[in-house]
Amino acid sequence: MRTFSALRLHTIVGRHYGLTDQIVILRLGHRIPRDLRVTTHVCLTARAFGADGLILADVVDTALEKTILDVCQRFGGKFWIRMGEPWRQVVKEWKSKGGDVAHLTAYGMPLPEAIEAIRASPNPKLVVVGAEKVPGEMFEVATWNVAVTNQPISEVSALALFLDRYFEGKQFSMEFENAEVKIIPSARGKKVVNLTEHGN
Amino acid sequence: MRTFSALRLHTIVGRHYGLTDQIVILRLGHRIPRDLRVTTHVCLTARAFGADGLILADVVDTALEKTILDVCQRFGGKFWIRMGEPWRQVVKEWKSKGGDVAHLTAYGMPLPEAIEAIRASPNPKLVVVGAEKVPGEMFEVATWNVAVTNQPISEVSALALFLDRYFEGKQFSMEFENAEVKIIPSARGKKVVNLTEHGN
Repeated sequence: MRTFSALRLHTIVGRHYGLTDQIVILRLGHRIPRDLRVTTHVCLTARAFGADGLILADVVDTALEKTILDVCQRFGGKFWIRMGEPWRQVVKEWKSKGGDVAHLTAYGMPLPEAIEAIRASPNPKLVVVGAEKVPGEMFEVATWNVAVTNQPISEVSALALFLDRYFEGKQFSMEFENAEVKIIPSARGKKVVNLTEHGN
Repeated sequence: MRTFSALRLHTIVGRHYGLTDQIVILRLGHRIPRDLRVTTHVCLTARAFGADGLILADVVDTALEKTILDVCQRFGGKFWIRMGEPWRQVVKEWKSKGGDVAHLTAYGMPLPEAIEAIRASPNPKLVVVGAEKVPGEMFEVATWNVAVTNQPISEVSALALFLDRYFEGKQFSMEFENAEVKIIPSARGKKVVNLTEHGN
């Protein structure tokens, strides 16, 4: 089981570790089993678009964890998932260590306007994505409230666009370490190579 | 009910209507009720990122339709949804009218490589997004198989990135006609204006 206590946050966050471009996602309002599929999409998008890990606030969903860790094992990389910490505590500790908080919401400032300031900050970023209802308090404690369009969309596409702009498209050239399988781009059909020694 | 017979396709597709940048999404493999939330996110992303409408293949999901039409009524625009047509028929008719088919799949050619050719084509585009399993035949009939990263992500984020690149970020400056409400970007809190005459 790769679940960690809240104390582990101290070892991850902080400028003194030189993690100046570290991005961690905080997922709020996840309900079991209703949000399993959407939160899975949030996690996979976060991983593939360059985030370091995801904290699932307030609840522990072992089905979600299993799905994500299985993908991580097969497709590689260092993406991690943590669960069950109260969101207020996560945000408070993140900020106390000098981290910024970017809350994605349709009510916020447009991403094209906000992104320069966000990218200019050297602090690690906690990117908050909610399910339907997000506590009003979140709008106050966030460093930035950022809108990926001021229309109802999806936290999945909001996160994708945010990370795309933040990392300037790095998702298209990322390589994942220790992968067991790798997809080879193909005009037709499916081409997958097995990278393990014995194959199967 | 805004469901249409397959024959309506003839009146929508086709270069002779001058719809050179028309984008319609085809959603495959939707299962009721499992995929309601994810397909809702697909629809909302499609609408907010500039697609004209979405065809839900093979099944009719009235709960989905209600959710989407409700958003369209409140937030405006002309996004439409159609349901229940067999996917092979939709693709066949689309191509017979001169339309292109872009199938989003992790196995395809990288979006940054593919997008120039796709944007250069003057034909209307049918953008295919599947749930878990997509028939192998789809890879053959598609004009392009396009990968938004060759990693497992989400059809929601794949569609968001595809439309973002295709329309070059137009989602951030779109206005939707006949909206009842409009969100005003705000650094803190929620600001929504009611655009109907009487208000409520």
